[in-house]
Amino acid sequence: MCELLGMSANVPTDICFSFKGLAKRGGDKGPHKDGWGIAFYEGKGCRTFKDPQPCSYSPIAKMLEDYPIKSELVIAHIRQANRGKIALENTHPFTRELWGKNWTFAHNGQLTGYKQLDTGRFDPIGQTDSEYAFCYILNQLQSRYPTKPRHWPSVFRFIKQCADKLNQFGVCNLLLSDGQFLFSYCSTHLYWITRKAPFGKAKLVDEDVEIDFQKHTTPNDVVTVITTRPLTSNEDWHKIKTGQAHLFKLGEKIF
Amino acid sequence: MCELLGMSANVPTDICFSFKGLAKRGGDKGPHKDGWGIAFYEGKGCRTFKDPQPCSYSPIAKMLEDYPIKSELVIAHIRQANRGKIALENTHPFTRELWGKNWTFAHNGQLTGYKQLDTGRFDPIGQTDSEYAFCYILNQLQSRYPTKPRHWPSVFRFIKQCADKLNQFGVCNLLLSDGQFLFSYCSTHLYWITRKAPFGKAKLVDEDVEIDFQKHTTPNDVVTVITTRPLTSNEDWHKIKTGQAHLFKLGEKIF
Repeated sequence: MCELLGMSANVPTDICFSFKGLAKRGGDKGPHKDGWGIAFYEGKGCRTFKDPQPCSYSPIAKMLEDYPIKSELVIAHIRQANRGKIALENTHPFTRELWGKNWTFAHNGQLTGYKQLDTGRFDPIGQTDSEYAFCYILNQLQSRYPTKPRHWPSVFRFIKQCADKLNQFGVCNLLLSDGQFLFSYCSTHLYWITRKAPFGKAKLVDEDVEIDFQKHTTPNDVVTVITTRPLTSNEDWHKIKTGQAHLFKLGEKIF
Repeated sequence: MCELLGMSANVPTDICFSFKGLAKRGGDKGPHKDGWGIAFYEGKGCRTFKDPQPCSYSPIAKMLEDYPIKSELVIAHIRQANRGKIALENTHPFTRELWGKNWTFAHNGQLTGYKQLDTGRFDPIGQTDSEYAFCYILNQLQSRYPTKPRHWPSVFRFIKQCADKLNQFGVCNLLLSDGQFLFSYCSTHLYWITRKAPFGKAKLVDEDVEIDFQKHTTPNDVVTVITTRPLTSNEDWHKIKTGQAHLFKLGEKIF
């Protein structure tokens, strides 16, 4: 299995604190040594840093822990390979263009028998069940909406139906974004927390690091973090129920 | 205008030396301060590091100068914005999937009146003429070859025709790759050099740095570098003629 991390915020926010906790699980405190990646949206653009090396020893991960890239939407993943060898093409998150937007996807779980699903014009590049599932969702979206849709929450409710379908093939915790919305679907385990004023202190589970969010925020900031396992030990994380999806925009829960 | 850098090699090779020279042109020795990017192919995978900040001051560029990512195919670009604001979505190189492969594109020049060209299902995400031109080529490829072609040099000869068409709209020096082949098209200025045994020393134009390739290579290595302006002062670079294209694979010139 793998670990997922997502962030949705109403101001460009750096994810250094959460990523520091996640990175520890990549080959040091956890078995997820088979690569990692993190995608940052900035406006319509998206940049992804990936390494098939363990996250906890990666010079790229080290650079990111210290270089605060500010973004309103982030998706990160650290991998414990099951389907697909350890290789760059199998490293999440995956990004593809649809309707002139960058769509980004990361998956935790394992699927079986999924190749009966149609991916249409979206050909997988690597060998993972995850990229295949992403291509399936994109193909479903394009079939359902041949031209760019206007009402985005409806689009994500349709994506929820696609995730329900994928979930029939195994375990499918996932994060998906178009750069504005952060969609999360829970198959077995996924947690979220929204931080807003009054901000307090938080302490990482995986490393002896504490942060006082009040020193790094303004009273209007709203920041939601989603992860496969809570990253902090002194905050109340909400568990998403099996088969349930949540949609976030600018840090706020839409559904 | 911008600067381009491409590399094709028969062994995974780091591009630190050439990138160090190019990076100096990004806001320090050159006016190309409006972002930069570099894509490394590793197997079927591709990872791109991008920053809308000047290359010569970017912590990501600094990390890459010291962290030797080894690849058989690299495309890099530093930007002096003309069409499209300074933003991540307008930062080259651009990567899209077609036929289950990552295609990567970078452009030097400026086009006018190009929006009459059809990009089909490949919608541009940013506002540059360059990404538009890339979408045009991909759409032409998919129209010409509805299913994955088999004879790749023919595909690249067809891409040469697309580049000829684009060149009618302005200046169009470009680099394009599917991860195996490196295609280059010269509108105004593009130079290449192939290094093989016996290897010698090379000295950067833009910085007081010299390298002895013999210490970093084996006798079988073949490495071709393509750039908009020669990067070294003591080697003979070939100038590509206007309207001419070259194709490289594993460091060797195919046409």
